[in-house]
Amino acid sequence: MNITNDSYLDAVWADICAVRTQAPLVHSVTNLVVTALNANVLLAAGASPIMAHAIEEVADLARISGAVVVNIGTLDSHWVPAMQLALDTAYEAGKPSVLDPVGAGASDYRNRVLADLMERRPSLVRGNASEIMSLAGEFANTKGVDSTDPVERALAAAQALTQRNGCVVCVSGPEDHVLAPDGRHAVLRNGHPLMTRVTGVGCSASALVGAFAAVQPDAWRACASAMAYWGVVGQIAAERIAPHTGTGGYATVLLDVASTLTEAELATTLRAEASA
Amino acid sequence: MNITNDSYLDAVWADICAVRTQAPLVHSVTNLVVTALNANVLLAAGASPIMAHAIEEVADLARISGAVVVNIGTLDSHWVPAMQLALDTAYEAGKPSVLDPVGAGASDYRNRVLADLMERRPSLVRGNASEIMSLAGEFANTKGVDSTDPVERALAAAQALTQRNGCVVCVSGPEDHVLAPDGRHAVLRNGHPLMTRVTGVGCSASALVGAFAAVQPDAWRACASAMAYWGVVGQIAAERIAPHTGTGGYATVLLDVASTLTEAELATTLRAEASA
Amino acid sequence: MNITNDSYLDAVWADICAVRTQAPLVHSVTNLVVTALNANVLLAAGASPIMAHAIEEVADLARISGAVVVNIGTLDSHWVPAMQLALDTAYEAGKPSVLDPVGAGASDYRNRVLADLMERRPSLVRGNASEIMSLAGEFANTKGVDSTDPVERALAAAQALTQRNGCVVCVSGPEDHVLAPDGRHAVLRNGHPLMTRVTGVGCSASALVGAFAAVQPDAWRACASAMAYWGVVGQIAAERIAPHTGTGGYATVLLDVASTLTEAELATTLRAEASA
Repeated sequence: MNITNDSYLDAVWADICAVRTQAPLVHSVTNLVVTALNANVLLAAGASPIMAHAIEEVADLARISGAVVVNIGTLDSHWVPAMQLALDTAYEAGKPSVLDPVGAGASDYRNRVLADLMERRPSLVRGNASEIMSLAGEFANTKGVDSTDPVERALAAAQALTQRNGCVVCVSGPEDHVLAPDGRHAVLRNGHPLMTRVTGVGCSASALVGAFAAVQPDAWRACASAMAYWGVVGQIAAERIAPHTGTGGYATVLLDVASTLTEAELATTLRAEASA
Repeated sequence: MNITNDSYLDAVWADICAVRTQAPLVHSVTNLVVTALNANVLLAAGASPIMAHAIEEVADLARISGAVVVNIGTLDSHWVPAMQLALDTAYEAGKPSVLDPVGAGASDYRNRVLADLMERRPSLVRGNASEIMSLAGEFANTKGVDSTDPVERALAAAQALTQRNGCVVCVSGPEDHVLAPDGRHAVLRNGHPLMTRVTGVGCSASALVGAFAAVQPDAWRACASAMAYWGVVGQIAAERIAPHTGTGGYATVLLDVASTLTEAELATTLRAEASA
Repeated sequence: MNITNDSYLDAVWADICAVRTQAPLVHSVTNLVVTALNANVLLAAGASPIMAHAIEEVADLARISGAVVVNIGTLDSHWVPAMQLALDTAYEAGKPSVLDPVGAGASDYRNRVLADLMERRPSLVRGNASEIMSLAGEFANTKGVDSTDPVERALAAAQALTQRNGCVVCVSGPEDHVLAPDGRHAVLRNGHPLMTRVTGVGCSASALVGAFAAVQPDAWRACASAMAYWGVVGQIAAERIAPHTGTGGYATVLLDVASTLTEAELATTLRAEASA
């Protein structure tokens, strides 16, 4: 069965509205570079961010939150136990959880931590192509945190990962792919290259996946809606800025569009399809 | 005795000018989400921020600073001793200190740490209604870091707190209330709902309270002036942005207004009153 | 021999283009206030930032990076070993490394850590006048992180430091001075006072020095080109903003100009000279 763009529109808009009206609490254990942007993106989308990593309170906060987001970008031995406990608590409490494997493959330490975190059964994983390939155990030429592998080459890895771990996997890039263990596959064709030139835009996608999963129980649909929203926002922002604007103004307008997106803007911009 | 808006204007403007001309050093032990915004707000106001949390230097820095600001938003067991030492040092050195009890009530850990920090006698406390109620030991429905209790319900808690601890207490919200142990009570009626949609705007208010307390020895007046300044800035920023602007442009203009506010702008916008 | 402005232009532009085309990976162990701005400045310049501090992976990341940048702004006992290892690894691997001695002189702890880090032979050091004077062991009246000493008074200290440690030293301020152990001395006369009113602009200069050193093997030239680029960007940004714009809009336009700077803009703005 194929789902076309029009079929998606209502679903994506309904999920955007659910985030805005329910204002889900999203608990992030995230990296030190993206805290402010992620919180601002969550606020712009209508969600309520809480960022906390103390082992003494992570379980309490995960239990009162609608979703947990773990991002290993600046992991260290003091934070990893909090990441583990946050994912464990989410799993036990039946809350959705998102793992963003930033820089997977860049160091042995990162790989070991990720292998452990995957055991704790995050319900969703979002990364770029090389991160997903690394997570899946395939060779990936990870250059820092930017992908050097085309998205296409990562799809096989993502399919292996979604089967092996039973989680929804999103490979983001020029096109975003969202794969479910039951074989559903969404392709989202929005976004803009400027999104890669502002730090934390990818991490913010993961934060949004958490927000949408908090209000939409179908994790695959939640992930596809979040990625659709963010890709559309990024594309409209690029269209809206003046020609001489660079990455500073783009980052500002990104939040402007995120916090004001209308159904009409979504409808005229969304390019998505899915097979199930 | 009642003080009306006009009586305030000169005091607030004098305090704003004192921050600008004296450029007080404000030492913050603050949370990982708001570091950059808080530093930029302090710089915009004319203060000089230093952010440091190493236990080995916190006392040295507190002693050379005009004020200490402690914000527990992303507390952990490595940072809490620095928060304790910073408050102790400020108290011993006779420096003003501000405690921002972010997320009070959200976890037992947070509550225990706050109870300890309150024992160290911060001279000012600023939080939203549910945080102040939690601090005061009353039931408060804290949903993450956003207040779900109306400001009015928190006033009794604030009054109890200011009496019990002998500190100035500010309950911020649609109206900001500043209470002193001697019974003085200022009400500030500026601000804008967009201020709640940019992360760190409340925490920045606490940072500003520190800056103003560094130059104005009357802690109650310093707090009222800082909150008046920030509320006026937030309101003018909301009036200045174009209609389609969202939270990104708003955050930018907030700093623009903070760094350029004139006496005339203050005079036409300030809405404040006090009883003593 | 004296080098005038025209002679510089080609060199600076060539280095800017090299960063843009080679997109060097720059590994930063930096402070918690400036992470996002530094990453965004590196991205705007065309470099690829990675920020990581776990002792378990710092050496791995330093080895795959083009340069290492260590910034002690929010140092603590958990991060200092990572700073040490990052500098040691860079030295052993023959990679350029930059030390930004934020707040040198503000506490004994900071001074002790800096003395240790200098032993690990960073290839470049960039700081303001009081920081460089403190590093060189001379009396410096460090008020937090802002210099209170004129740049001129620091030049003797910088010359002593470059001789003693064999590193390139940059003293930044209203004029930036770049000194090499072999006696070369560049003076860069761009920039704007607004650069001191946005947090992390100085730290971002250090990050850029890392990016330029990753593509330009002559460390003195790399440092001079990076400082020229950043000073020109800061000056053009100040010229471009509307009169009523404050520090918020300025910070945004700073990234706009950094990510779009043309050779013509550089040529009409650059003011530099050197003696060798």
